[in-house]
Amino acid sequence: MNFALGIDIGGTKVSYALIDNNGAIKGDISKVATPKSAREIESLLKNIILKFENNIEFVAIATAGTVNNENDKVIGSTANLPIGYKDINFSELSDKKIFIENDANCAAWAEYKIGASKDCKNSIMLTLGTGVGGGIIINGKLLKGKSGGAGEMHFVMSRNKRRQCTCGAWDCFESYASGNGLKLTATEISGNENITTYDIVDGAKVGNEDYKKALKVWQNDIALGILGLANLFDPDCFVLSGSMEKFVDVEEIERFVNSYVLTSPTKVYHAKAGNYSGMIGAVLLGNELI
Amino acid sequence: MNFALGIDIGGTKVSYALIDNNGAIKGDISKVATPKSAREIESLLKNIILKFENNIEFVAIATAGTVNNENDKVIGSTANLPIGYKDINFSELSDKKIFIENDANCAAWAEYKIGASKDCKNSIMLTLGTGVGGGIIINGKLLKGKSGGAGEMHFVMSRNKRRQCTCGAWDCFESYASGNGLKLTATEISGNENITTYDIVDGAKVGNEDYKKALKVWQNDIALGILGLANLFDPDCFVLSGSMEKFVDVEEIERFVNSYVLTSPTKVYHAKAGNYSGMIGAVLLGNELI
Repeated sequence: MNFALGIDIGGTKVSYALIDNNGAIKGDISKVATPKSAREIESLLKNIILKFENNIEFVAIATAGTVNNENDKVIGSTANLPIGYKDINFSELSDKKIFIENDANCAAWAEYKIGASKDCKNSIMLTLGTGVGGGIIINGKLLKGKSGGAGEMHFVMSRNKRRQCTCGAWDCFESYASGNGLKLTATEISGNENITTYDIVDGAKVGNEDYKKALKVWQNDIALGILGLANLFDPDCFVLSGSMEKFVDVEEIERFVNSYVLTSPTKVYHAKAGNYSGMIGAVLLGNELI
Repeated sequence: MNFALGIDIGGTKVSYALIDNNGAIKGDISKVATPKSAREIESLLKNIILKFENNIEFVAIATAGTVNNENDKVIGSTANLPIGYKDINFSELSDKKIFIENDANCAAWAEYKIGASKDCKNSIMLTLGTGVGGGIIINGKLLKGKSGGAGEMHFVMSRNKRRQCTCGAWDCFESYASGNGLKLTATEISGNENITTYDIVDGAKVGNEDYKKALKVWQNDIALGILGLANLFDPDCFVLSGSMEKFVDVEEIERFVNSYVLTSPTKVYHAKAGNYSGMIGAVLLGNELI
């Protein structure tokens, strides 16, 4: 069995582990806080890689932000990582080959190889968290577009400029389908400000009608977005992941989508490649591309 | 030089011509009214093919409706063609190989090979007519999805159920960006019912403020949809075709999209492969796929 070092670089922590070429983690998963400067991230990565260098074939990094089509450079969208992160020359961190890809794309790949969308050559993963991430697989290949950044789940859901999105545009899918979107929806319905997603979920459980309605509207917004994606991509399935996906009724979404879809019926699944699908997917994708 | 017979089957007419493998039409383009029954369409096609059979390598058909991934069968969305059209066994029409693909997909392919998106390996064509059609090219391949029907421009533009779309869902891009969408927008703004797109365009020219506003809102809706597609696909360019595209300011749309796009700047062009891009694209695509 051959191993790679999988590393997941997020805004709050860096996780890493040895992973075999079937995507199984061998031994411990280590975690450290993400350093506050690009230079410190660089030396952290060098130190981590040094420890494993003799036992691995390559290094696979899942990172926040957009990665280029050559999988060797971060090129954008790294608001939660320090300035200068984009300038790190990843290929110089080690003599071993370094493969890098966006974390949501890696997670989508893990679902396709060993998770909920296994063997679905056309599939779309949506990560419902504070924001919404995405990874799109077409004919067994990751959709990257001309620069590498394809799969941004920022398409308009309203023409009325109701919510400004984190991206600067108005009313993107992210601003309705994300955890923050749920909070805004609940505030619109209840009038309550400063609520958390847990206030909403727990409130709905004990019968708060406003919060029950907010969850329903939120889920419907997710379903509307998925319907559009189903008409554009005609995928075998959708996979929902992220901290918010457990509050979603995938069967109800699937029924809604298939009652309107123009292309052909699709499936909607909960993710099942687990919390480390980012680094696992990075290794599985690196296996094929390097 | 080798030739194929290109045929375009639309709801009102069937057009055909000899086309060489560079996409140039040789000789006349013939047109006949689309017969009212599937059986008559079948015998019309047989007769047309018979005339050319000895001079061609294959037959390439661009058709309204969805075509399967094997390019030999129409599988859906043929509201403007007779019942039974889907059951035609195209491969039995002749001993020559028959290649069939959706007309919007064929037109997108013609733009990619010889038109406005030439050499743009990632491009999206939008046909703005009575409805909105589309063809999406990713990495030099047509996006077909699992069944063959990908590229339907039916994604939500509003959460408020303002307009029911021809597809049965509410507020799809098509119901805002199409000619019919423009009419609805103009009616909303002016209060006038039963207006034509020419009333709107001509009225705007002579200073009708309502119609000027309607055209502006309509164009903005097109731009909003394109922004979402740019974030999803990160294409090199968009190509606008169809009877309505001449009323659109592509430079203004491009500026709007690029001021918000998250992936990377894109281009927006007018189509230039001409009125017969459907049959030309069918031949050029058939050249590669059969």
